[in-house]
Amino acid sequence: MSKIDKVVLAYSGGLDTSVIVRWLQETYDCEVVTFTADIGQGEEVEPARAKAEALGVKEIYIDDLREEYVRDFVFPMFRANTIYEGEYLLGTSIARPLIAKRLIEIANETGADAISHGATGKGNDQVRFELGAYALKPGIQVIAPWREWDLTSREKLMQYCEQHKIPVDFSSGKKKSPYSMDANLLHISYEGGLLEDPWAEAEEDMWRWSVSPEAAPDQATYITLTFEQGDPVAIDGERMSPATLLEKLNKLGGANGIGRLDIVENRYVGMKSRGCYETPGGTILLKARRAIESITLDREVAHMKDELMPRYAKLIYNGYWWSPERRMLQAAIDESQQVVNGEVRLKLYKGSVSAVGRRSADSLFDERIATFEEDAGAYDQKDAEGFIKLNALRLRIAAGKGRNLI
Amino acid sequence: MSKIDKVVLAYSGGLDTSVIVRWLQETYDCEVVTFTADIGQGEEVEPARAKAEALGVKEIYIDDLREEYVRDFVFPMFRANTIYEGEYLLGTSIARPLIAKRLIEIANETGADAISHGATGKGNDQVRFELGAYALKPGIQVIAPWREWDLTSREKLMQYCEQHKIPVDFSSGKKKSPYSMDANLLHISYEGGLLEDPWAEAEEDMWRWSVSPEAAPDQATYITLTFEQGDPVAIDGERMSPATLLEKLNKLGGANGIGRLDIVENRYVGMKSRGCYETPGGTILLKARRAIESITLDREVAHMKDELMPRYAKLIYNGYWWSPERRMLQAAIDESQQVVNGEVRLKLYKGSVSAVGRRSADSLFDERIATFEEDAGAYDQKDAEGFIKLNALRLRIAAGKGRNLI
Amino acid sequence: MSKIDKVVLAYSGGLDTSVIVRWLQETYDCEVVTFTADIGQGEEVEPARAKAEALGVKEIYIDDLREEYVRDFVFPMFRANTIYEGEYLLGTSIARPLIAKRLIEIANETGADAISHGATGKGNDQVRFELGAYALKPGIQVIAPWREWDLTSREKLMQYCEQHKIPVDFSSGKKKSPYSMDANLLHISYEGGLLEDPWAEAEEDMWRWSVSPEAAPDQATYITLTFEQGDPVAIDGERMSPATLLEKLNKLGGANGIGRLDIVENRYVGMKSRGCYETPGGTILLKARRAIESITLDREVAHMKDELMPRYAKLIYNGYWWSPERRMLQAAIDESQQVVNGEVRLKLYKGSVSAVGRRSADSLFDERIATFEEDAGAYDQKDAEGFIKLNALRLRIAAGKGRNLI
Amino acid sequence: MSKIDKVVLAYSGGLDTSVIVRWLQETYDCEVVTFTADIGQGEEVEPARAKAEALGVKEIYIDDLREEYVRDFVFPMFRANTIYEGEYLLGTSIARPLIAKRLIEIANETGADAISHGATGKGNDQVRFELGAYALKPGIQVIAPWREWDLTSREKLMQYCEQHKIPVDFSSGKKKSPYSMDANLLHISYEGGLLEDPWAEAEEDMWRWSVSPEAAPDQATYITLTFEQGDPVAIDGERMSPATLLEKLNKLGGANGIGRLDIVENRYVGMKSRGCYETPGGTILLKARRAIESITLDREVAHMKDELMPRYAKLIYNGYWWSPERRMLQAAIDESQQVVNGEVRLKLYKGSVSAVGRRSADSLFDERIATFEEDAGAYDQKDAEGFIKLNALRLRIAAGKGRNLI
Repeated sequence: MSKIDKVVLAYSGGLDTSVIVRWLQETYDCEVVTFTADIGQGEEVEPARAKAEALGVKEIYIDDLREEYVRDFVFPMFRANTIYEGEYLLGTSIARPLIAKRLIEIANETGADAISHGATGKGNDQVRFELGAYALKPGIQVIAPWREWDLTSREKLMQYCEQHKIPVDFSSGKKKSPYSMDANLLHISYEGGLLEDPWAEAEEDMWRWSVSPEAAPDQATYITLTFEQGDPVAIDGERMSPATLLEKLNKLGGANGIGRLDIVENRYVGMKSRGCYETPGGTILLKARRAIESITLDREVAHMKDELMPRYAKLIYNGYWWSPERRMLQAAIDESQQVVNGEVRLKLYKGSVSAVGRRSADSLFDERIATFEEDAGAYDQKDAEGFIKLNALRLRIAAGKGRNLI
Repeated sequence: MSKIDKVVLAYSGGLDTSVIVRWLQETYDCEVVTFTADIGQGEEVEPARAKAEALGVKEIYIDDLREEYVRDFVFPMFRANTIYEGEYLLGTSIARPLIAKRLIEIANETGADAISHGATGKGNDQVRFELGAYALKPGIQVIAPWREWDLTSREKLMQYCEQHKIPVDFSSGKKKSPYSMDANLLHISYEGGLLEDPWAEAEEDMWRWSVSPEAAPDQATYITLTFEQGDPVAIDGERMSPATLLEKLNKLGGANGIGRLDIVENRYVGMKSRGCYETPGGTILLKARRAIESITLDREVAHMKDELMPRYAKLIYNGYWWSPERRMLQAAIDESQQVVNGEVRLKLYKGSVSAVGRRSADSLFDERIATFEEDAGAYDQKDAEGFIKLNALRLRIAAGKGRNLI
Repeated sequence: MSKIDKVVLAYSGGLDTSVIVRWLQETYDCEVVTFTADIGQGEEVEPARAKAEALGVKEIYIDDLREEYVRDFVFPMFRANTIYEGEYLLGTSIARPLIAKRLIEIANETGADAISHGATGKGNDQVRFELGAYALKPGIQVIAPWREWDLTSREKLMQYCEQHKIPVDFSSGKKKSPYSMDANLLHISYEGGLLEDPWAEAEEDMWRWSVSPEAAPDQATYITLTFEQGDPVAIDGERMSPATLLEKLNKLGGANGIGRLDIVENRYVGMKSRGCYETPGGTILLKARRAIESITLDREVAHMKDELMPRYAKLIYNGYWWSPERRMLQAAIDESQQVVNGEVRLKLYKGSVSAVGRRSADSLFDERIATFEEDAGAYDQKDAEGFIKLNALRLRIAAGKGRNLI
Repeated sequence: MSKIDKVVLAYSGGLDTSVIVRWLQETYDCEVVTFTADIGQGEEVEPARAKAEALGVKEIYIDDLREEYVRDFVFPMFRANTIYEGEYLLGTSIARPLIAKRLIEIANETGADAISHGATGKGNDQVRFELGAYALKPGIQVIAPWREWDLTSREKLMQYCEQHKIPVDFSSGKKKSPYSMDANLLHISYEGGLLEDPWAEAEEDMWRWSVSPEAAPDQATYITLTFEQGDPVAIDGERMSPATLLEKLNKLGGANGIGRLDIVENRYVGMKSRGCYETPGGTILLKARRAIESITLDREVAHMKDELMPRYAKLIYNGYWWSPERRMLQAAIDESQQVVNGEVRLKLYKGSVSAVGRRSADSLFDERIATFEEDAGAYDQKDAEGFIKLNALRLRIAAGKGRNLI
C-alpha cells in the first residue's frame, strides 16, 4: 500500500463515520475530506458540518443530491420495472453509485488519493462503493475501516471514542434502534436485531415510513399518475420535479400502509440475509409503470424487457451501475420508452395498490379489434386457423414420428 | 377437409356449446361425443348429462379432474413462480392443456376423428386447445365453430336455437352477466362489457370470488403453509390433497379480499385485451413459494429461475404446455425443487398477503455468518477486499485505458 | 378482399415473376408496377426493363441498392456476430427487409394498394416480405400468387406461358440448375434437387461462388482488415465502401474455398429444410469481428452480446427486422460497438480462415497484467484468495448443510 | 489458519509441483499425499511414483481417469454444444472439476485436512480447483503456493531446488518450451512467450498435436460418426469407449490439421489473455453434434439450447461445474438429448471439417413436406396467410397508430 495523503470519506455525521474520521487521521496520518449528501434520508445534513469541523476536517462537502438521485438513478432503473429476486425494489443499491461518483469527483477536485466509507465487510454496499470508485478512477485507493480495524464491537467503538475524545452524543436517536437502518428518497431498510431470525415477524414499531395497513384510512385514495417517456411527471395533473414527485408518492403510500416488504435476499458476497424495507412511492410507481406499459409497449418489447430485467436488477444489486454492460442494457431499455406516455389511475387502500384505469395517446389497445361484439371485419377469425396450423406443424411432425409428450 | 364421422366436443352444458352440438350434427352430419369436466369452475357438471342426452348425444363423458388439474398442471407451473407480463397468474392458460389431453384421450377411446371447442377466433384458448390436440394426435381434425359459422351475434344464436328447438333456459344466471367469464380452481376471469374501455374501473359487483378489501375483516388472518419439494402440502399443519388445499386457499384469500387483478395483456394472436382476474389462492401461494425458496434455494439457481420464468410463462400462455421445450424447462425447474421444503407464515389482510416468517430444515440462511454481531470467524471480512479488487479488475483496466462510463 | 387497382411486384426478370406479372394483370385486372433491385446477386438488372415493358408494365423501377444493403443491413447485423442455429449467416434473411421497404416506398410513390412477390407458401421469404410490408404500411394488401394460383408444377407454368404468350427464353442459364437458388452480396443459397435427401453430399458442381478447398491455392493468403465502430472499413489498409469491401472479401474467400456451408435448418413455418450456402466474405468477416471484439470489448459486454445473439438471429431469420424488438436489441448492440476499432490479420487457406493477429488503440489486453513474467505489482495474486473464498461461500454454506452435488 | 497435518497435492511429477511437495513439507510441517492422474495429457504418469517417493511421500495416488473424464465430463459438456466466447472449446476448464473431485475423495480417504495445487494466482485454474473443493468439502483448507511463496521467478525456483536437493532433471523436454502448456484428452493449450503479443502470429513449431493444414494430406478423409442420446458411440460403425473414441478423433483431426485456435479470452479473474489451443477431436465432435441435432431436435428446443449455452459455457469456464446451477442447466440439456440418435458423415480436409450428410431413425426432417415438388397436400400453403397475418397484427396495429420503424 502506498502512502496516502488525503482521503475523501462518505460521512453521515453519525457515530461510526465520526470514529472513522479520527481513525483515518491517526492510522494513515492523512487529511480527511468529508462528504455528506442529502439523498432524502430524512435527516438534516447541515449539522454534519460542525461535527466534521470539530474533528479537524478542513474540506467539507455537503450536497443536496435529491433531484439528481431520482432523475438520473431511480427513474432510469424503474424504466426496466426492476425488481431483485422477485420482490426487492433495490432502494439501497441504487443510491450507492451516486455516492461513489460524487466521492470520485471530490477526490479529483481536492487531489485526494483515496476514498473511504463506513460499510462493513459482510455487506453489498462496500462492493457497490468500491466497484464504482474503481470504474471511475482506476488508480484510486480505497480504505474500508470495517475490514481493517479491530473495533469489532460497540464496546470497543465507545472505548475508542473515549480515548480519542469523540463526543458520543453523536449517536442520534435513530442509532438507538436495535436495527441497522438505511434510508434515502426511495426507501428505508432494516436489518439485524430480531430480524436475524427469519421466522420471527417484524415488530410493528420497527416500521418508520408507513402506517400499518390496519391503521390506514378506511377509505381508499385514488390518484392519477402521468408518464412521459417512461418517467412519471405529474400526480393528479400537477407537474412536479422528480424528487418532489417521489416524495409525494412516499407520503401517499406511507399514509395508506403501502410498500412494506419482508424478505430473505442473497447478497453478492455469498450469504443470505433478512431485510425489511419500506418503499411506499416506489411500490406505487412500479404498479403504475406496469399499467402504462401494458397499453403502450409492443408485446415483444415488453417480453424482452421482462426477460432482461432480472439480469439488469442483478447488475444494480451487485454494484455494477458504472459498467459498460449496464449501459448496454440501459440503451435497450431506454429505446423502448419513447412511447411510454399517458395516464394511470390507481387505488391505494390499506397496504395495496391497484391500477384501475390507464389511457394514452400512444395506446396500442384497439377496442375495434379486441371487442366481443361485431368488429366489422377489423379482424378475420379465419386467419387463426392458419396461424395455429403452422405453429403446430413442428409438433405434428414430431408426433407423427412417434415423439411422445405425455 | 376430409369427411368427419365423430367429433369430441368440450361441452360446458351452457347455451353456446349446446348450439355447437346441434350445429356439428347438422353441418358435418356426424356423431358428437360430449366431454364435460369439473376443474373447479364452481358449477355442477352432472346436469350437462341430461342436456347432452336431450341433444341426442350418445357418448357422454363427465369427469372430475380437480385433483389431476392441481397436482399435474397448477403446482408444476407454480414451481417456476410463473407470472405472465409481470402480473398475470395464468389461471385460464394452465387449464387448457388438461382439457386438450382429455379430448384426445376420449377421441382415441371413441374412435373419433375430430375434436371441437367453443373458443372464439380472437382469443388464446383456441390456440391452446388446438396446439395441444395436434401435439398429442397429429392426425386429428379440429372444428372451431366460432371461426366457421355465421352465428356472429347473440341474436343469430337465439334464432338458431329457436329454429333447432334448443331450450334457451340453458342460459344460466351466470350468462346474464355482461362479462365473458371463465373459472377453474385457480381463478375466475372477466372480459368484455365495460372492461373494453381500459380507463374504466371494474364495477364492484363484477367480482365473484372475493369480497372487496374494504369488506374484508378488520383483523388480519395468519396461516402457515408447509412445502415439500416445492409444492404446498399442508395449511396450519393439516395435510390436504392438492385440490383441497387450493380450494382452502381460495376461501382464505377470497374472504380477505386477496387476488384481484385488473390488467391489459398481450394475446398470442396479436391484440391487446383487458382482463380482470380473481386468483385468491394462487396469489397467496406465489407469495409463500417466493418466501420458502428465499431460504432454501441457492442464489444462482434462484436467479436462473427468475431469468427463465418469463419464457416459461410465455410458453404456457401461448399454449405450448405439450411441447418439448416446456418439458426441457420443466426438467430444469423440477431439478431445483428437491430442497424446497419448509414452512412459511403468512399474514392476510384486506387485499394483501405478506410473508412474515419462513423456516426450513433445508434452510441456507446462516445466522452465524449473516449476523451483525461477532461471528467468531465464520466469515473473514478481509476476503471481501480481494473479491472486490478482482471483480473490479476489468473495469479498472478499461478506465485506465480511458474508457469513460459517465 | 377489396378491389386492387395497382400492385408493386418484386420482379427479378426471370420466368416465374414474369408469369406473375401477367397473372396479376389478368386475375386482378390491375396495373402492375415492377421493382427490380441490384443487391449483388451477380446478374444484370437492366434487362428486366425490356422484359417488363414487353409485358405491358408502365411503371418500372430498377435500383442499385448494393451500398444501402451492406451498410444498413449486413453490417448492423454482423455487429451482433449473428448466426442462426449455430451455423447459418442469414444471407437470404437479411436481404428481405430492404426489398420490403423499397416495395412500400414504391407503393407510396405510385399510389399502389398492394404488393406482390414470387416467394412460395412453404418458405420463410413470404413471411419476411409480408411482415415488413405490414409493419411499414399497415393497410397494404399483399398478393402471394404461389399461395393462390394452381400453377403448382413447372408444366402448368410453361402451359400458362404458352397460352399467354410469355417468351420462355426468359428462363436464364441459371434456372436450368436443379437447385432453387438465391443470391445477393452476402451469399448464394441452394435448396431442392438432391439436397432434399439430407444424407446425400452436395455435388461439387453445385457450388458457384467458391472453388473447392482442394482446388484453392497451395499457399495461404494473408489479409488485414480494419474496423471502425464495429464495421470493416479497409482491407490491407485500403479504405473501401461497404459494398466494395464485401465484394472484395467475397473474391478473396471464394478463391480460397472459404464459406461453404451445408445444413438442415428450422424454418419459421414449422418444417426442417436442407440448405447449402456460400458466404465467403461473411465467413471471413465474422472471424475477424470476433477477433477485434476479443481485445476491445469488456468481458461482460461480450458475454451479454453472446447471450442476446441467438434471439437477435431468430428475429432476423423469422422476418422481424422491421420490429420494435429488433430496434431495442440493435440499440444495445450498437451501444457496445463504439470501441470496436483496430486491425485483424487473417490467414485464408483452403477452406478455412484463422485470425493470427489483432491490435487496437482501444485494446483492453494488458500485457503488464497478463504476463507470466514478473509484473511489478500490476496484479496482486493474494486478491485471488478472497475472490475465490467469497465466490465459494454460498457453495460452502450449502455443502455444510449437507447439500450433495455429486 | 489452523494447523495442517496432511495435504493432498495435485502432483504432475514435474519440477514445479515437486518443489511444492518440499515447500509444503517445510512450510507447514505436514505430510504430503500426492495425486497424479492420467487424463490423456500424453505423458506417462507412473514415473511420478518414484519422484514422489524420492521426496519422502508415503501416500501416492496414481489414477487412470481417462474414461471417467470423457464419459462424465467431456461428453455431458458437449451435449450443450458448449463454446466459450464464440470460439473456445473449454479443453482446460472441463478437466479441472474431475481433479478437484479426486483431490477431495483422496482427502477423505487419507484424512487430510487440506489440498494444494500448482496453479498460479492469475489464472482460472486456481478458481476451478478451489471452487470445486469447497463445494464438495466445505471445511477443507486450500494451499495455493503460487499465491503464498516468494519463488516468483525461475531463478528463485532453481535456487530453492539446489538448497533443498531437489533433482532438477525433473524438468522434462516439454518444459523447455517457451510456452506454458497444458494437455488432456480434449486439447493442448499454449500461453505465454511470444503469444503475449496478440498481434504476433503463433510459430508453426509451437503446435504439437496437429500437422499444419498445409502439411495435411491432399486427399480429404471421410468418416461417419454414430450418436446415441447425444453422445458419440462409434466411428465408421465401430463402437468404442468414450476415451478411445475421442483419442481416435484426435488422431484423425490432428492428421488433417483440424482444431487449431488462436484467441484472446476473458479470464474470470478479470484480465484478457492470449491462448492457442489444439482440439482436433473436439472440433470434429462439435460439428457432428450440430449436424445430428439439426435433424433430430425440435426447433424450439434447439433454440433454447442455443440461448442457454453461453451461460452454461461461462459456468464451466469460471469453475462452477460442481454447483446447483450447473446441475439445473444440465437437467434441461440432458432432457433434450434422448432423441439425438443417428449418423453424421463428415469430410476432414486441411484444417476444416464439414458435415456432408446426416440421417436418423429419429429424424424430424420430413421430405414430404419440405419438397419443392408436389407434396400431395402434406402442407397447405394457404395456412401461411393466416400465420403471417396474425404474426403481423401487433405490427399493423402499431403502424396504424403512427409508430414508425424506419
